[in-house]
Amino acid sequence: MSRITAVETADVRFPTSLALDGSDAMNPDPDYSAAYVRITTDAPDGLAGHGVVFTIGRGNDVQVAAIDALAGHLVGRDAEELLAELGGTWRELVHDSQLRWLGPEKGVMHMAIGAVVNALWDLRCKREGKPLWQVLAGLSPEQLVDLVDFRYLTDALTPDEALQILRTAEPGRAEREERLLRDGYPAYTTTPGWLGYDDEKLARLCREAVAEGFDQIKLKVGGELADDVRRLRIAREVVGPDVRIAVDANQRWDVADAIAWIKELVSFDLAWVEEPTSPDDVLGH
Amino acid sequence: MSRITAVETADVRFPTSLALDGSDAMNPDPDYSAAYVRITTDAPDGLAGHGVVFTIGRGNDVQVAAIDALAGHLVGRDAEELLAELGGTWRELVHDSQLRWLGPEKGVMHMAIGAVVNALWDLRCKREGKPLWQVLAGLSPEQLVDLVDFRYLTDALTPDEALQILRTAEPGRAEREERLLRDGYPAYTTTPGWLGYDDEKLARLCREAVAEGFDQIKLKVGGELADDVRRLRIAREVVGPDVRIAVDANQRWDVADAIAWIKELVSFDLAWVEEPTSPDDVLGH
Repeated sequence: MSRITAVETADVRFPTSLALDGSDAMNPDPDYSAAYVRITTDAPDGLAGHGVVFTIGRGNDVQVAAIDALAGHLVGRDAEELLAELGGTWRELVHDSQLRWLGPEKGVMHMAIGAVVNALWDLRCKREGKPLWQVLAGLSPEQLVDLVDFRYLTDALTPDEALQILRTAEPGRAEREERLLRDGYPAYTTTPGWLGYDDEKLARLCREAVAEGFDQIKLKVGGELADDVRRLRIAREVVGPDVRIAVDANQRWDVADAIAWIKELVSFDLAWVEEPTSPDDVLGH
Repeated sequence: MSRITAVETADVRFPTSLALDGSDAMNPDPDYSAAYVRITTDAPDGLAGHGVVFTIGRGNDVQVAAIDALAGHLVGRDAEELLAELGGTWRELVHDSQLRWLGPEKGVMHMAIGAVVNALWDLRCKREGKPLWQVLAGLSPEQLVDLVDFRYLTDALTPDEALQILRTAEPGRAEREERLLRDGYPAYTTTPGWLGYDDEKLARLCREAVAEGFDQIKLKVGGELADDVRRLRIAREVVGPDVRIAVDANQRWDVADAIAWIKELVSFDLAWVEEPTSPDDVLGH
């Protein structure tokens, strides 16, 4: 039996705002940072699982403090037991009756629990000697359903319905695994799209994305309409008609703004519009 | 001119879980705690404004760290300028482009900003030598509207509509102030209603609430239905038919649970049902 011996944190920051990497309409000068967590077990395993929660600079220390506040749930516990039931472990952390006052499942505590649970998944994968996707692909429908909190979902999807979907899909698993290993998984890049980049850099990074084989890019929008029109024209010219272009407003608009703004961009054949408004704003509609 | 000289915090905790004070269906053993903040100015004012954010124990240190993360916005600033435009000061704190990643307006950072802004209001009231309600009652409709963030509200209420409501009500201000000073403001008490109290304590505290003049009490519900029925029967017998009884489930139920449960309690003539479900759960309805 191995026990969890330590939950260690680190506050790591990068001054990305100097070159405006990562800049968008809501986050004009981010310093890409992360609160890291390292969860270790003693012999015979002697492994370490790593988790990370991303921030954009100030407040990364608050995030570290939140992870530290979860350590008491883990240190000294039987690793095998914790890792065998990661749905239950997650529920235990989310439902700490005192800590949930700080969220629950919102903001700092939500992200801290995410970092810790990811580190535990990493630990589990290392014990099994497999990447995460293969560990997940090896779970039964029952085990997968147990990982999900249905409290907010039952009116749209019950655990039984989810089980049924997974059982129906189960016979195709081996074929899908083979296809993933053969073809890979479709991905897009936001590298060209940060709002603070000048037109020359935007065009160059679009060209590079296409050369690297991406068939979709994403551009940040929502600062100034004239800038968005100009930048989308440049991007569309560079990537041609066959590469998909998505946009992301990072919740910058209200509903009326979003509709009006997107009408001005529709001629650039957008693949999708991400976060046009805040979820709170959409509630009324 | 006075400047903000310091933003000091304190982590204060009370072991209320020993007697189950404050216990409800989601928070069975709270240790009522608070992150305190004290914002001081130098001469000629030399005042201190106090703010507090309530937690129920573990994680109070995370809350303190979040308040500390806001200090950089305040120390060294001109107090008069900050306090004259508290809507603007609030917006500045909420829209710190890096810190808002940790929320925004959710959980730990949301509560930290609340504590700081309350401390600034306290400072302003002390400068004016008035209680907060009289400071607010002395603001113009324009000043009141400027305190509100309409970003999530414009589809239900615009700033102009709010202005109109306040202007229409303005002539009645003096009379309402007089009435408040003469009659006080209606209030209810939750003192009898904590879920962890035994029946004898519940009955005694209900009697005391009525004797103190309260015409409404609130009971926590949502643990076990049979307990809720028994406790409501006791409370209704003690307070009689004329004292209003509200219940609060602290988001314990999903929608179907809430409807079924409340049907069983309806004969006790409930004044209202607070937080039957989580806001996230209601989204689908």
